[in-house]
Amino acid sequence: MNIIDIIEKKKRKIELSSEELEFFSKGTIEGSIKDYQISAFLMAIYFNGLTNNELYTLTDLIANSGEKITFNKKDKKIIDKHSTGGVGDKTSLIALPLASSLGLTISKLSGKGLGHTGGTIDKLESIPGFRTDYSLKELEEISEKNGISLGQGRKNIAYLDKILYSIRDVTGTVDSIPLIASSIMGKKLAIDSDGIVLDVKCGSGAFMKTFDRAKNLAETMVKIGKNHGRNTVAIISNMDQPLGSYIGNFLEVIEAYKIFCGEGDKDLRDLSISLSSYMIKLAGNNLESYEEIYKRCEDNLENGKALEKFKSFIAEEGGDFSYIESYEEYMKDEKFLDIIIEEDAYISSIDTEEIGKTALLLGAGRYSVTDVIDYKAGIIMYKKIGDKLDKKDRIARLYSSSDEKLLEAKDRFLKAIKFGNDINKKDIIMDVIE
Amino acid sequence: MNIIDIIEKKKRKIELSSEELEFFSKGTIEGSIKDYQISAFLMAIYFNGLTNNELYTLTDLIANSGEKITFNKKDKKIIDKHSTGGVGDKTSLIALPLASSLGLTISKLSGKGLGHTGGTIDKLESIPGFRTDYSLKELEEISEKNGISLGQGRKNIAYLDKILYSIRDVTGTVDSIPLIASSIMGKKLAIDSDGIVLDVKCGSGAFMKTFDRAKNLAETMVKIGKNHGRNTVAIISNMDQPLGSYIGNFLEVIEAYKIFCGEGDKDLRDLSISLSSYMIKLAGNNLESYEEIYKRCEDNLENGKALEKFKSFIAEEGGDFSYIESYEEYMKDEKFLDIIIEEDAYISSIDTEEIGKTALLLGAGRYSVTDVIDYKAGIIMYKKIGDKLDKKDRIARLYSSSDEKLLEAKDRFLKAIKFGNDINKKDIIMDVIE
Repeated sequence: MNIIDIIEKKKRKIELSSEELEFFSKGTIEGSIKDYQISAFLMAIYFNGLTNNELYTLTDLIANSGEKITFNKKDKKIIDKHSTGGVGDKTSLIALPLASSLGLTISKLSGKGLGHTGGTIDKLESIPGFRTDYSLKELEEISEKNGISLGQGRKNIAYLDKILYSIRDVTGTVDSIPLIASSIMGKKLAIDSDGIVLDVKCGSGAFMKTFDRAKNLAETMVKIGKNHGRNTVAIISNMDQPLGSYIGNFLEVIEAYKIFCGEGDKDLRDLSISLSSYMIKLAGNNLESYEEIYKRCEDNLENGKALEKFKSFIAEEGGDFSYIESYEEYMKDEKFLDIIIEEDAYISSIDTEEIGKTALLLGAGRYSVTDVIDYKAGIIMYKKIGDKLDKKDRIARLYSSSDEKLLEAKDRFLKAIKFGNDINKKDIIMDVIE
Repeated sequence: MNIIDIIEKKKRKIELSSEELEFFSKGTIEGSIKDYQISAFLMAIYFNGLTNNELYTLTDLIANSGEKITFNKKDKKIIDKHSTGGVGDKTSLIALPLASSLGLTISKLSGKGLGHTGGTIDKLESIPGFRTDYSLKELEEISEKNGISLGQGRKNIAYLDKILYSIRDVTGTVDSIPLIASSIMGKKLAIDSDGIVLDVKCGSGAFMKTFDRAKNLAETMVKIGKNHGRNTVAIISNMDQPLGSYIGNFLEVIEAYKIFCGEGDKDLRDLSISLSSYMIKLAGNNLESYEEIYKRCEDNLENGKALEKFKSFIAEEGGDFSYIESYEEYMKDEKFLDIIIEEDAYISSIDTEEIGKTALLLGAGRYSVTDVIDYKAGIIMYKKIGDKLDKKDRIARLYSSSDEKLLEAKDRFLKAIKFGNDINKKDIIMDVIE
């Protein structure tokens, strides 16, 4: 067996055997297969895709190429959640405590953000005192005590994916659905769970710009999950505009808090409840319908039980909730700039990736892994797609520690907003793949 | 400008500008573009091809990436010839002296063989005394004196092609028509000439197995040549069986000699005359038709003028022609094994690449560039496609310095020959692209 024959087969769309993919994985990890052969193979996959068998095998090889995470679950079901990344996506901050308030045990590992999409870990770390560097044992203990724990992803999982991704990143082979799906699911499958709820973002702020591609990715990931014995559901949610109105780290914590307080954006609330409901459903709740579960989630948001769980979750991991409750006071030392529109207009569309990059510019994200985040930096959007702006209306407030960045970000922000009557606002939940 | 965007464009079939291809060429040569990016780009070209503009620019960049060879032609036209490589292809040994006998000036650089196809340089060096390591000035002098000179290809031409080929060879990106065409033509264009006659081999012993691919390659190379101001013609010739009956180095010199003596294989004779005729035509002979030139070639083969030129060509470059004239004597110390067929049969097809590999095994070629060739090793085929074999007929004679290799080669040879009534013998000249 040799790698050139394997590349040739993929090039000619001849299905690779498990042994051939194992040979590729082993050689890639050991270094006997060279980077230039890996990249040629990945480009051939970009063009010719992967058959189901190849997809399942590659995902398995990724999942087994590093540390495997198991939780001591003690007969409880653990359901994982994953978002493909969007702008203003703070659903984990809402959906996980909400599901926990209904009795679902949550032990979850999350990632840091890079580029124009944020990471849940960064958002939680923006709360003074909140720690995320817990050991697995500590996370189990917190979860056992309070029903919910969330920590940083482990560094040693899915080693094969790290190599493949580092090459994809610099060879134009990132945007391949089977490679994205096997990368995400390989990492998910390395972590023990009974089911996975996926939030596949679709639109101008997502990696999947079109519904067809988002649906293809969702279906691919769901079939991988099911093939590996994990009950998997994917919600395809709209990302033609930022999710909710707050973008940043502490700003997104504030918006999550608002949802628990019965305020806040409807799209964000609906999507968070749906994610939560599917998590509970996947855990094996067959007594209730999805609609009944959804209703109970809404109840817990109204009766304060979800807020209680949000509070205790943050407190148990060291966070000082008083900063959230008095967020206006806490935000006072961050500089801001209001963006006022001078004429009557409707917002017709938003280049959401550009909004994400504006938040990045303001200090809310990382250009490279070593960058330090300004937790209070970001954007509050007062107006979104379809909203009518009257003369002198404030469309957004930008936060940053730097006046210079505020001015630069203003230009960038305005370029991302299109005005007109050709309004195309999509439903937040575009489809569900079960 | 960066290489990732360039790869992305090629991936999406967006035409690259000359500046972008220059950026790729410069970065590849300087090392700022990494091997894994080059291979991903080449694989994208494999799938998406090159537009005419891209093809012309890349070929130009290859041609200009190393030493450029110019001959002091003194108002004479120089026509180059190139074969894409086949088994038993000794047409250069015949066509070049033949064209020279009709007054065409020949100054040509040729290559050594690697793998199952031989090289003209190796064939000439099999003649005791023949030297090929002449300087360009020496080749000019020989050509000026005798009208014909032939030396080894220069090492420093087309440096970009050397890098690209070394990567293609190990990443499954060899068999891309635009990459093959730009590689061959880039090297040809680095050498000054007024026209180029290409012999594109097609069939079981060639890199182009099908007529469609051979025609595509021929058309691609002809349009590159014309775009670069070189009058170019491509003959597509059949390689479903070895060309002629002799395969090896000195053995092929013998067969060339036989053609000059009015003996030898008709296909080999026809193709050699055609190549010679097109060379003379491209040099600007507009007074005669192709048919008239062809007839004059035939005349010179019959009246002994071509043989005289063959003799003087070999003598001027140091070769001792007496070894050719008394070839039976010279071959006596080489071991041989006759292959006899035990039953009545027709040869229906020949796996010609396997025949080439059998010759390689016997010692006639190189597995790697440092291998030493046994010049007398090879095969004489007494029967070819469509020939009827009677019981006890000798089908071939294998030559080698090793008894062991003779036995091993016999098995390999027999496996390459198919018997039956389903005979499909194609014309030697399948098409001409002008």
